[in-house]
Amino acid sequence: MTSSTQAVANLQTEISRLKHELTTMKVDDQIPGASATCTIADYLLERLVQLKVTNIFGVPGDFNLGFLDYIEDHPKLEWPGNCNELNAAYAADGYARVKEGSLGVLITTFGVGELSATNGVAGAFSEHVPILHIVGVPSTAQQRSKPMLHHTLGDGRYDAYHVASKQFVKADANLTDKNTAAAEIDRLLTDCVVNGRPAYLMLPTDIVHERISSKRLLTPLNVQPPENDPESEDFVCDEIVKLVDAADGDVIVLVDACTIRHNVKDETLALLEKTKFPVYAAPMGKTAVPEDYERYGGIYVGSISRPEIKEKVENAKLILSIGGLRSDFNTGNFTYQIPQNRTIELHSDHTRVQYATFEGIGMKRLLPKLTGRLQPFKDSAKLITVPKFTLPVPDEGNETISHLWLWPRVGKFFKAGDVVVAETGTSSFGILDVPLPHGAVFLSQILWGSIGWTVGSTLGAAIAARDIGLGRTILFVGDGSIQLTVQELSTMIRTGVKPIIFLLNNSGYTIERYLHGEKRRYNDIVNWKWQKLLEVMGGTEGETCQSYLVKTKTELSNLLDNEEFAKADKIQLVEMIMPMHDAPRALKVQAELSGKSNKYVA
Amino acid sequence: MTSSTQAVANLQTEISRLKHELTTMKVDDQIPGASATCTIADYLLERLVQLKVTNIFGVPGDFNLGFLDYIEDHPKLEWPGNCNELNAAYAADGYARVKEGSLGVLITTFGVGELSATNGVAGAFSEHVPILHIVGVPSTAQQRSKPMLHHTLGDGRYDAYHVASKQFVKADANLTDKNTAAAEIDRLLTDCVVNGRPAYLMLPTDIVHERISSKRLLTPLNVQPPENDPESEDFVCDEIVKLVDAADGDVIVLVDACTIRHNVKDETLALLEKTKFPVYAAPMGKTAVPEDYERYGGIYVGSISRPEIKEKVENAKLILSIGGLRSDFNTGNFTYQIPQNRTIELHSDHTRVQYATFEGIGMKRLLPKLTGRLQPFKDSAKLITVPKFTLPVPDEGNETISHLWLWPRVGKFFKAGDVVVAETGTSSFGILDVPLPHGAVFLSQILWGSIGWTVGSTLGAAIAARDIGLGRTILFVGDGSIQLTVQELSTMIRTGVKPIIFLLNNSGYTIERYLHGEKRRYNDIVNWKWQKLLEVMGGTEGETCQSYLVKTKTELSNLLDNEEFAKADKIQLVEMIMPMHDAPRALKVQAELSGKSNKYVA
Repeated sequence: MTSSTQAVANLQTEISRLKHELTTMKVDDQIPGASATCTIADYLLERLVQLKVTNIFGVPGDFNLGFLDYIEDHPKLEWPGNCNELNAAYAADGYARVKEGSLGVLITTFGVGELSATNGVAGAFSEHVPILHIVGVPSTAQQRSKPMLHHTLGDGRYDAYHVASKQFVKADANLTDKNTAAAEIDRLLTDCVVNGRPAYLMLPTDIVHERISSKRLLTPLNVQPPENDPESEDFVCDEIVKLVDAADGDVIVLVDACTIRHNVKDETLALLEKTKFPVYAAPMGKTAVPEDYERYGGIYVGSISRPEIKEKVENAKLILSIGGLRSDFNTGNFTYQIPQNRTIELHSDHTRVQYATFEGIGMKRLLPKLTGRLQPFKDSAKLITVPKFTLPVPDEGNETISHLWLWPRVGKFFKAGDVVVAETGTSSFGILDVPLPHGAVFLSQILWGSIGWTVGSTLGAAIAARDIGLGRTILFVGDGSIQLTVQELSTMIRTGVKPIIFLLNNSGYTIERYLHGEKRRYNDIVNWKWQKLLEVMGGTEGETCQSYLVKTKTELSNLLDNEEFAKADKIQLVEMIMPMHDAPRALKVQAELSGKSNKYVA
Repeated sequence: MTSSTQAVANLQTEISRLKHELTTMKVDDQIPGASATCTIADYLLERLVQLKVTNIFGVPGDFNLGFLDYIEDHPKLEWPGNCNELNAAYAADGYARVKEGSLGVLITTFGVGELSATNGVAGAFSEHVPILHIVGVPSTAQQRSKPMLHHTLGDGRYDAYHVASKQFVKADANLTDKNTAAAEIDRLLTDCVVNGRPAYLMLPTDIVHERISSKRLLTPLNVQPPENDPESEDFVCDEIVKLVDAADGDVIVLVDACTIRHNVKDETLALLEKTKFPVYAAPMGKTAVPEDYERYGGIYVGSISRPEIKEKVENAKLILSIGGLRSDFNTGNFTYQIPQNRTIELHSDHTRVQYATFEGIGMKRLLPKLTGRLQPFKDSAKLITVPKFTLPVPDEGNETISHLWLWPRVGKFFKAGDVVVAETGTSSFGILDVPLPHGAVFLSQILWGSIGWTVGSTLGAAIAARDIGLGRTILFVGDGSIQLTVQELSTMIRTGVKPIIFLLNNSGYTIERYLHGEKRRYNDIVNWKWQKLLEVMGGTEGETCQSYLVKTKTELSNLLDNEEFAKADKIQLVEMIMPMHDAPRALKVQAELSGKSNKYVA
């Protein structure tokens, strides 16, 4: 993002905030509820409920206990209770990803708790996920007098955690003044949801209970992106139409991460259906468009793409990129062969047409207008063929569970509406080529790439999926990655979600073996007794949980075909024994490209 | 610490650094080794070995893999291989605490890895523990061009993690220039060890392999604190002698955290033996003086102290405080009844006599001089009686494992040289009143208080104890706390350390029930099948590990008296069933004091 784009976005944010403030003041004092008061805790929780939050993640700690009472007593909120703060942050992230348009909420305590969550919050920043991180902090009196309390650095710097947190959030506040608390809460929540980025809120122990007017609650938050300037927007539309016209409608659409994260899936699908433009997805845009859509051709990852996809995308006269996020693993290590003068990029807060940047022209508002203007090209667009996105199960003639066989095989197991979570590593690369069914949701952390993230996020995703009526939650995770965050299986058992966990037991950090150190001991891990893990963490085998061990293709196929297993009525863990040095095609190529630039050896 | 104290300390540090630089330049080019070269990786590792580091903690990640090769290939270094980065930071912390005078070393990868360790590093800062945090980061070329690599925030801010880390370290550097790399490494290591605080080192993938002169390695690092200004030091000695004289030798010494952390245990004991002054310890100073020392009276914690200790300490005419760290939990919530005009405070970098502060007068150099000057008072000091520090096992007439009974009972189980680790909560409060045997080392995190810390730190402590020939490592941890960091049991099993883990199963976060929310669901946790935990994480029950369940006083007593158990030749876990709402005396009082200031309720 350029600095002028940032400046325009900030101004638009400020205008939205001021409009909201004006609206809250215009609420007639005579209408019911306008003269009521509530505690600041209840104000905050009510705002969260208005934004459709149902579950709040976190760990109790002495500076947040008072606030937790309000959550536990709230009729519309649940407290799953995480095992640690990093996992809680991951859960809030997974929840927010599945519950599009809402947000994830995380509560920790001062210092020790919040700092454990840093990686999770930074990952949400990186991948455009709205999380509100509420931190229970010492009282306003203690913040002024700065005693050497436990959880402090011992040198009186009560602002140190706040200062550090600013690197990883879009908005932040320390609620020390009851008079501005409600406006600050509104500002943070709006910034968080509109921008799809984390916000950080320090909640002092005494402020929690302060009473304020609840009148503002009668004005819902406006979490829609700001309006585009109409003249600029018209100009941009004209420019795009000219280019499409010059290309004779030979346009392909490339959807990416921010199509999902900035909530333009519906607008994108409307454009596709009206224009008939072929569509492909970057890895982070997988399931932005239903993968069974007739004009969808699969995943484009630069030089790592399947040849027929690479050819179609790179030979199109014009690429309309929606919500692009061009990170290394999302672009085949920056190997797009698409010149800028054939590219139109739509982003959440700016638009780029060939070499020109139009600040403040966001895609949420632009897309419907473009749909109207580009509809006339549908007849020529229809003539462009789209390769069928399929992945047949190969006959390898052996019983080894290889990546080449595994991914297409599990592809046949998925059902409409499943939530599929893939850990960074062999799973996130392997799943890319598998077409997911209609309405399926794909979650992975391809830019941030923090191993262990999926275990926490699966908890959050499964809770959100249950909330909004999606199907099963299915996790693919390696034996190395799951060890980082394993305790959250316990919270899954407690909350009664029923994910299916495919555990790829390949004896260590296989993705890193590919990057560097294939035979190094530092890529080895301890082999756990995975079959007993769910039971240790609170499950009752055969009743609330079920574990399986599969060593052959036949065993796995039989399990996948078993209806009892497929209905996922308890939490299930499938340990799959796989060769240590096998990996999906895309990972092998990516690792080679990445290893070169990382100079692992002298 | 005042800002002028800080300024003086910084100047002293700079003088030490410049002296070291000068010394390195004076090494004769003709002596063997002076013309040799080595890689920057080897330079760094050699410096660590010189400082007696034997184990490096961390998790592999793609930007540190190249450096890990050097560690794995180094004949004097081990790589235990942690399950996650927070646990690795805790392990480095525990290692540094036991290996006094050395440091803990932690390696993580850019962004995702390092941020997971933030809480662990900040805790080491808070509690004065020297940890070097080495972060594998993108190459110098990538840092200049700033591509959107995985593990970045996606907006080109390659310095964001570094900026955040500065809040929690004493020194930091990004090694982008091979010409200054060695001097920077020396600076960081010196700052880290001398100050007993963490340092942060960014190690780009290409820099690792650069060759530099190894001549500097012939000059060992000077990790002794700076010299005191002789005139000021003499003046301070005179002032102190005057006060002791005026008090007729009625002086008690109070040892605290920094007596241990800043390595003045030997100097302190010499002073005590020569002067015969009675000595007491703050909770964080427990085992700074051997608890079987004849003139040692036990733990002083302000109003929470046992009455005979409180009376003796508060009625002394003069208190000589060594390495004080007056945090809430370390002082009975700031309830010292000792006026400043009866207090002398010795710190690592300043001295306070009554109301006067003497900047730059550190205790490491001052103590031996004081010992000489105060020796004449020993005859009058001898006359002051010291209450015997004992804790008899009460006869409660029932079989419930209560805190009142547990702590004195396990006190009889400890042996000379044991390392005793107590988790924040019922354990850290319960253990205080237990006299530990000669040479025992006590570890707890009383200021920072991050639950789960003991599991990682026990790993590091046990490895360090094995290194330097200490006895058994014995951990006390609650069922709530262990869940945060449980996977590190796996690394214990892998590395073959053999701690005894007493798991207090009291159904949740008992310390928090005392602070607030006694019957709240958010203080509940899932009850795991603790007996199977070691086996799941890689142990073989009866061979490499052993688990026990004790529900009664008799069962626990029998186990403690069992020689097979006591010899600790494998990792052992003892699940002790305890009442949910029981707590040690000190915790009950502290919680009441703390709860009042935290205003948990409106």
